[in-house]
Amino acid sequence: MTDFERQIAFILELDKIKKITRRTYLSDASRLENDAEHSWHLALMAFMLAEYADDSVNVLKTVKMVLLHDVVEIDAGDTYCYDEKANRTKEERERKAADRIFGLLPAERGAECRGLWEEFEQGDTAEARFANALDRLQPLLLNDASGGRSWKEHGIKKSQVLKRVAPVRAASEKLWDFALQLIDKNVAAGNLADE
Amino acid sequence: MTDFERQIAFILELDKIKKITRRTYLSDASRLENDAEHSWHLALMAFMLAEYADDSVNVLKTVKMVLLHDVVEIDAGDTYCYDEKANRTKEERERKAADRIFGLLPAERGAECRGLWEEFEQGDTAEARFANALDRLQPLLLNDASGGRSWKEHGIKKSQVLKRVAPVRAASEKLWDFALQLIDKNVAAGNLADE
Repeated sequence: MTDFERQIAFILELDKIKKITRRTYLSDASRLENDAEHSWHLALMAFMLAEYADDSVNVLKTVKMVLLHDVVEIDAGDTYCYDEKANRTKEERERKAADRIFGLLPAERGAECRGLWEEFEQGDTAEARFANALDRLQPLLLNDASGGRSWKEHGIKKSQVLKRVAPVRAASEKLWDFALQLIDKNVAAGNLADE
Repeated sequence: MTDFERQIAFILELDKIKKITRRTYLSDASRLENDAEHSWHLALMAFMLAEYADDSVNVLKTVKMVLLHDVVEIDAGDTYCYDEKANRTKEERERKAADRIFGLLPAERGAECRGLWEEFEQGDTAEARFANALDRLQPLLLNDASGGRSWKEHGIKKSQVLKRVAPVRAASEKLWDFALQLIDKNVAAGNLADE
């Protein structure tokens, strides 16, 4: 295969993330969201909200990161963030998936994309911190808009959401304040259990 | 409303493109694709295939363009590219939608996003030509992968697809050659009528 054919094969393989269902409902609560929709939303947020990152971020790098961050779920599946048992095997499953999926690309491109995915997972750079913050803030926005439907279905507590959205704090004071407001609003509305 | 509140309102409003169904099937032909999934796929292609653009493109600008290019369909709906009657009213419907939707943003941000959308529509810059090429190439890829299901359902002819993908030629010799190969392959396979 030529490099071009490998790039096209990768682009087509990634079509599969449109079929990976998340646990978050769309804002109108009509159905669950999938990974491609979620990733599009994060990319939009990356350039719309970059000005609120505490450390200046390279927007294109952040966008690439969020466009790719969930592709390992093609093989590893979506691991519900509040499922403790599944989260114990998540890292190993996702690493194998990354080997196969980024391995579809020509070596240099594969290394770039794999690197962006690992950087996101490690969360140490300004872009990775911001991308992770968006990945936690976006479902909070949708949960708030949908009257907490997913939280209610799974009996989720405030303390669990606080732990889940903690990465927002490391990336943006503005977005963290906003996340806390949304959480308090949903506790007050009875959408989220206050222990 | 503060600027931040307006940005969040815009991000939430755009959630609606996840419910706008296109006429193209996913690669496995299981269901139709929606605008958010399509836009995610174009953004991925923008950075994966930018090296094949005949004129060098600003990748971030191209990505922003494709992330936003279909948001007017929230009000105007998806106009099937082979529906001649609906295409006569498309421009007016989409212009009104742009006024309302980009008007949700703070003035400067709204002007930036509206400008990107208009630039895409006019197709005169290197980024707009490349973004339009991707917008035409991606459904061709999916139609090819799904055995031409959508073409067959609508009785689409080779000449219609050639006209539809013409913008690819203006952006990339490499992608244009590839598009022609895919079309010929699908005519030979009986997925696309040869007049």
